[in-house]
This record gives sequence, structure tokens and C-alpha cells, in this order.
Amino acid sequence: MPRVQASPSGQQPRRIMDGMTLSTLLDRVRTERPLVHHITNVVTINDCANITLAVGASPVMAEAQEEVAEMASMADALVLNIGTLTASQVQSMLIAGRAANDRGVPIVLDPVGAGATQFRTDSVLRLLDQLDIAILKGNAGEIGTLAGVSAEVRGVDSGGIEGDPGETCRQLAERLGIVVAMSGAVDFVSDGVRLTSLENGHPLMDRVSGTGCMLSSVVGSFASISEDHYMATVAAMVTYGLAGERAALKAKGPGSFRFKMIDALASLGFSDIESGARIRSI
Amino acid sequence: MPRVQASPSGQQPRRIMDGMTLSTLLDRVRTERPLVHHITNVVTINDCANITLAVGASPVMAEAQEEVAEMASMADALVLNIGTLTASQVQSMLIAGRAANDRGVPIVLDPVGAGATQFRTDSVLRLLDQLDIAILKGNAGEIGTLAGVSAEVRGVDSGGIEGDPGETCRQLAERLGIVVAMSGAVDFVSDGVRLTSLENGHPLMDRVSGTGCMLSSVVGSFASISEDHYMATVAAMVTYGLAGERAALKAKGPGSFRFKMIDALASLGFSDIESGARIRSI
Amino acid sequence: MPRVQASPSGQQPRRIMDGMTLSTLLDRVRTERPLVHHITNVVTINDCANITLAVGASPVMAEAQEEVAEMASMADALVLNIGTLTASQVQSMLIAGRAANDRGVPIVLDPVGAGATQFRTDSVLRLLDQLDIAILKGNAGEIGTLAGVSAEVRGVDSGGIEGDPGETCRQLAERLGIVVAMSGAVDFVSDGVRLTSLENGHPLMDRVSGTGCMLSSVVGSFASISEDHYMATVAAMVTYGLAGERAALKAKGPGSFRFKMIDALASLGFSDIESGARIRSI
Repeated sequence: MPRVQASPSGQQPRRIMDGMTLSTLLDRVRTERPLVHHITNVVTINDCANITLAVGASPVMAEAQEEVAEMASMADALVLNIGTLTASQVQSMLIAGRAANDRGVPIVLDPVGAGATQFRTDSVLRLLDQLDIAILKGNAGEIGTLAGVSAEVRGVDSGGIEGDPGETCRQLAERLGIVVAMSGAVDFVSDGVRLTSLENGHPLMDRVSGTGCMLSSVVGSFASISEDHYMATVAAMVTYGLAGERAALKAKGPGSFRFKMIDALASLGFSDIESGARIRSI
Repeated sequence: MPRVQASPSGQQPRRIMDGMTLSTLLDRVRTERPLVHHITNVVTINDCANITLAVGASPVMAEAQEEVAEMASMADALVLNIGTLTASQVQSMLIAGRAANDRGVPIVLDPVGAGATQFRTDSVLRLLDQLDIAILKGNAGEIGTLAGVSAEVRGVDSGGIEGDPGETCRQLAERLGIVVAMSGAVDFVSDGVRLTSLENGHPLMDRVSGTGCMLSSVVGSFASISEDHYMATVAAMVTYGLAGERAALKAKGPGSFRFKMIDALASLGFSDIESGARIRSI
Repeated sequence: MPRVQASPSGQQPRRIMDGMTLSTLLDRVRTERPLVHHITNVVTINDCANITLAVGASPVMAEAQEEVAEMASMADALVLNIGTLTASQVQSMLIAGRAANDRGVPIVLDPVGAGATQFRTDSVLRLLDQLDIAILKGNAGEIGTLAGVSAEVRGVDSGGIEGDPGETCRQLAERLGIVVAMSGAVDFVSDGVRLTSLENGHPLMDRVSGTGCMLSSVVGSFASISEDHYMATVAAMVTYGLAGERAALKAKGPGSFRFKMIDALASLGFSDIESGARIRSI
């Protein structure tokens, strides 16, 4: 039976990620209601707003260069998503990102479609170079591309990548000195030292546009309420994956699954997390 | 038991807003199917289109400077919403607004996030200055900001405002010489003389992105079919709030609530309005 | 009882569009999972992504001039939709379209609102002139406008058109030398010689924003897996119309209808198509 597990031993000290700890982080999101500023794509921007509300945080979307620094400065987290990137949007991301860095506001970067076009790959590298990103969250193809391993990216879909995905995730995190999360049938999160695999979620999530983007919004919501961004990312991914599992129980297809995910996330409780989390320190 | 109420006395003549009158306005929307031109944000633009269809009107979204004057001229109402404002969009709003003013097409302005950034506040003031706005519809923080009272705005969420909200609403309406609607747990509508409080709606509306934007679309739909924009706004807000109440009856969370609101608004009838409207002239 | 019908005779050889043939095309979409690149409007872009996934294909939305040629070159179909057109977007469509033409990637053009404003009409004519469009899919008002007959277009809604709609569709297809699809209570598809009428669908489809746009995404998904674009378009429209019919069976309004359409399309099977297709060669 899947259970919350911590590695029994290891070279590095590891925080035990038990159900209570995870659940406490979700409670903090709901209580503190962090403001999550998004500069994101026009395909799933509404889903990102609604999932942010569902997890208990407060979303704001703003990308005009005239206002992004002001908005990012008052936010508790900044989510940058390049799903429908334009040159002007890159500028807004840089302006907002610098303001966030100045104020210690954590930045989550979702490199949607990195590897599919040169423009996307180059823009992500530029954002990683010029900003202090806290958490990089992508699918295997995107993370693989940025890690420099052979990876297949087709549009915004990921194909397979060369080598061990968990190790690729860990190495990129180590090189960048940030938290890297790689989503897939099995998810991985690493801060370069610690590495966790997560098996929550449901195949229907691949049949709905924006499930990756929404995850980044949830990660942003959690990033704002814990200094330990590795832990926050794990908690966000477990919470989100569990909402997907619960939604799938009664969904009749991707259409009903989508709204049920929102309902499930909004009502997820301690017992769901305690009994359902499938995470493992590697 | 809440009932449609009219003030029994008052300095100004007051139209009795009984259920029949309100319901007749909704019937006119459904029969005349007004064309509601939106220049709006990319977060909730789809919701605005679908709620406009649900209330019985016909939405069109267009913001290219090459076409907005032509589109606004053929429309029955123009809704301007600054939720994801850009400098270029302000220009489009001014061009469309002037065309609307020339043709007597009523304009609804939703100052999303006014008070959160200088760019938003300044842009709203410019639109109010350069265009003849018929109806200004915002939350307490936005309306309070524009009224010059101390108000809390965090992202696009409203905090509390200083003083009496109804009176703030009335004073701003009086100063601007237009109808002002302030949404919240209790809504207020004023034309500077008349003031109505409305208590329809449901807390789940705060858990779904775009419920404020959608209300502006509904207000725009009603504004086009009545010369009395004060009355039209009250009718729109009652109708919309009742749809929220009905949707909440069977919703299992914000995801299901959202589509049920569309269903509820599309099927709302005279008896719902007659028995459910909770409005009071102050 | 409505049945799949082929014209018993005719001047041109006609492929029999039986349920098996139609169903086989749907199976090919699901198996080959074509990548459908969209440059589309911001109102329904999310719906287009989700319907593309529901039919079994893979959507990607990208419109930056820096990347559209690269994205269109790797795609299996390109869908151009002018629902919220800007001058910059026209440039992106031309760049993407030329890349698609160079690689033999079929292009579907949805002329949303052509006839409503000069900017839209002119832009569509320019796209038709400068690109090799495979399939033009619009409502009666849009197709009528482009065919040069008297047509009523109000915002993005179609009114009636002068003359015989099927013949208007056929004549425009003949003149342009492409496949033309005209949606309405009865749909028509023609390649200039062959003409098919289709009666699948449901009135609730007119109460949801984006049902026309989503149809174009489905047509794009089918266009990529058959050289016979006429046949592919018919198959796409039948499949989509049947999903609408199934969704309507249990919908309680336009809100629930919308997600049920996604569910229905994702699970549509051979027997649904075999028993439900209402198409007729004219």
C-alpha cells in the first residue's frame, strides 16, 4: 500500500515528509492566502487563476511592462510560464523577476515547450541566467533539454529522454543551484542533493490542457509559505497529484475530470494526504 | 423572508423594482439579443463570452485598433475591463469608446485592480475623463480607490474600505454623474441620488476567477435594453446573484459551481426572480 | 431514420462515406496523434486545445514571429483563426503559413467575423491570396461574405445569406480550388465538385462560445491524416456534431453541455458514428 516514505538513511540529513508536514503546508497556504503573480500563457491562464484559488491562494495576472515590477513587489510568489511567449513578454518577465529578486519573492519558472523551438530554449536560458529562479518545473523533455541530454519535445508534449530521469533532474538542480521538478508518470524533485520521486496523479491529467501549467501555479502557492523550496515543491506536487486521483474517481472523460480537479483540490484534507501520498526519497 | 422592496418614501421619485419589472428586463435581453462588444482581459475573456450567451445576449470580443470603432458602432453595449491592461489596449478602449459615445452605445467600465498599481489607477482615470462612461462597476477596493477613500487592494482582490460603502458608492456616482456599482458581500448601486443595496449571491463566487468580470458582461447586456442604466444595473446584479445562489445549491466546489452558474443563468425564470430578489432602496 | 448516405449517382466519382470509413479516420487521429499548431483567438484558445486533445490529437499554440515557422514546420496541420485578430498576428499567420506550405502541412482557415469589420474581411482575403489554404471553414455569414453574396454578420454571429447556401459553398470552393465548409443548422462541405450536407449537431452548440472554433481544431486534426481533405472535413464535422448530440442528452444548460461535449468526443465510438451520422451527398 502506498505510504508516505522517507529514506531510512542517506548521506544528507533529510526532513521526514510525513502526511502531517505536507498537510500543514497546505493549511498554511489556505490560512495565509499568498498572492501569486503570474506572467503566463493565454491558453491556460484562466485555469491557472482558478487552481490558485482552489488551493487557497490568491492569483493575479499582469504583464504590462508599466506595472509588473509594482505587482511582483507586492506578491508572495511569481510564476513565469512561457507557453505562448512573445519578445515583449520576455521583457516583462525580466522586469518582474528583478523586482521579485529584490524583495525576496520566490520565482517559479515553467519552461513550456523548451526544446521545441530555439526561441523558447533561448528565452528560458536567458531567464535562468538573468534572474534568481527558485524552482524550475517542467516535463521530462523540457528539463532534459535544459540539462543537455537528448530529449524529445513535440510542440508542448514531452517524449522520452536519454538516461535516468531522476538523476538528470538532480544534476540540473545541482548545476543551477535551485530546485528542479520534472513532471511525468513519475515526478522527480531535487535540490541538487536531495531527490524525491512522486507517483501521485492520473493519466487523465495528460488529456487536459494546462495540467502542467496549473501545477506550476500550485508550486508557486506553496513556495511562498516555506523557506524550504524543495519541501514546498514536494508538498505542492503531492497535493496536486492527489486532487487528480480523486477527480478521476468519478470523471466520465477529460471534460468532467477538469472541473472535478478544481473541486477536489479545494476540499482536499489531511486524511487524503496522509493516506494517499506516494513519495519516496531516493 | 427576503423580498423585493422599494423604499416607502424618499426625496426623489423611485421606480418600484418589483419582480415583474426585473423579470421583464431579463426577457428583453433574451428577446432582443443585444450585441455586447468587449475589450477585456485574457484571463476571463472566455467566461465573459459564455455568461453573455447565457443571459441571452450576443458577445463579441475585438480589440485591434483597426476594427474597434467599427465593432463598437454596431454594438448595443461596450464593456471595458482592465484586468490585463496594456498601453495598446488603452488606445483601443479610447477608440472604441469614442465610437460608442458617438452612437449612443452605453459603456460599462470594470476597473479591475485599480488601486493595485499606478498604471491601472491612472488608466481608469483617463478612461473616465476622456469617455462618457455609463456604468462603473468594481469591487469595494477599486471603487473606494476611485472615490478617494482609504481602500485596500491586493492584486485584484478587495480588502476593506474606510467609511460607509453605500455612501462611498453614492458619492462617487454623484461626482461622476454616472451609475456606480460596488460588488461585495452586499452590493450597492447608485446613480448619485438613488441608492440600492443588494444581497443576492453566494460566497463560492469569490472562489471562482472572473465572477466580477462576468457580472460586468451581464450589466452590459442589460444596459443596452434600458435607458435607465440604474435600473438596468440593479436588474443585472439581481439576476446574476440569483444564478449564483441557484448554482451553489448543488455545487461540490468551485469547479462545479462555475458551470452550474452558466446553467442557472440560462434557465432563470420569473418565479426565481420574484421570490429571490433581495434588494432594498436606501 | 437518418443514415449515412451516398449519392446513388452523379457526374463525378464519389467515395462512399459509410460509418466504417468515417470511424477509421477517427481511429487514425487517435493512433497517429497529429500535432496541430494553432494561431488563434484568445477567447476560445483553451477550448481549442482541449477539443484537440479530446479528439485524440496534440495541440500546440504559438504565435511569436520568432518561432511560428519552426513550430508550423514540425506540425501535422496548421489552424488559423482570426477571432481576435491583430496586425501582428496576421504577420505570424503569413510566416507560419508559408512554412506550412513549404512542408506540405495542410492549413485550415477559420474566418471568424469576416464581414463584420473591414479589417477581418481584408485579412482573410490576404491570407487566402498569399497562402495555399487547404480548408476554409466558416459560418454562413462568413462564407457568404467571402463568396460575395449578400450576407448578414453581426459581431461573430451569422444571420441569413442570399440564395442557396449549399450552392454558395460549392461555388466558393470551386473558385478558390479548396475545400469549403459552411456550418449552420445544416452544414455543407464542398471541394467545388462534390457537395455534402450534414445534419448532425444540436442547438445548444449555439449557446456556447467557441463551438465554431473548436470545430476548426477538429477539422485540422482530421486534415492531417488524410490526403482527401474533403473527406477529412466531412468526417471531422460528423464526429463533432455527434459529440454535440450526445452531450445534449444529459446537459442541463450550456455550462454542463460544454464539458459533456469534451467527454463525448473523447469516448465516441464506431457504433455512435455508424448509427448516428446524418450526411448526404448532393
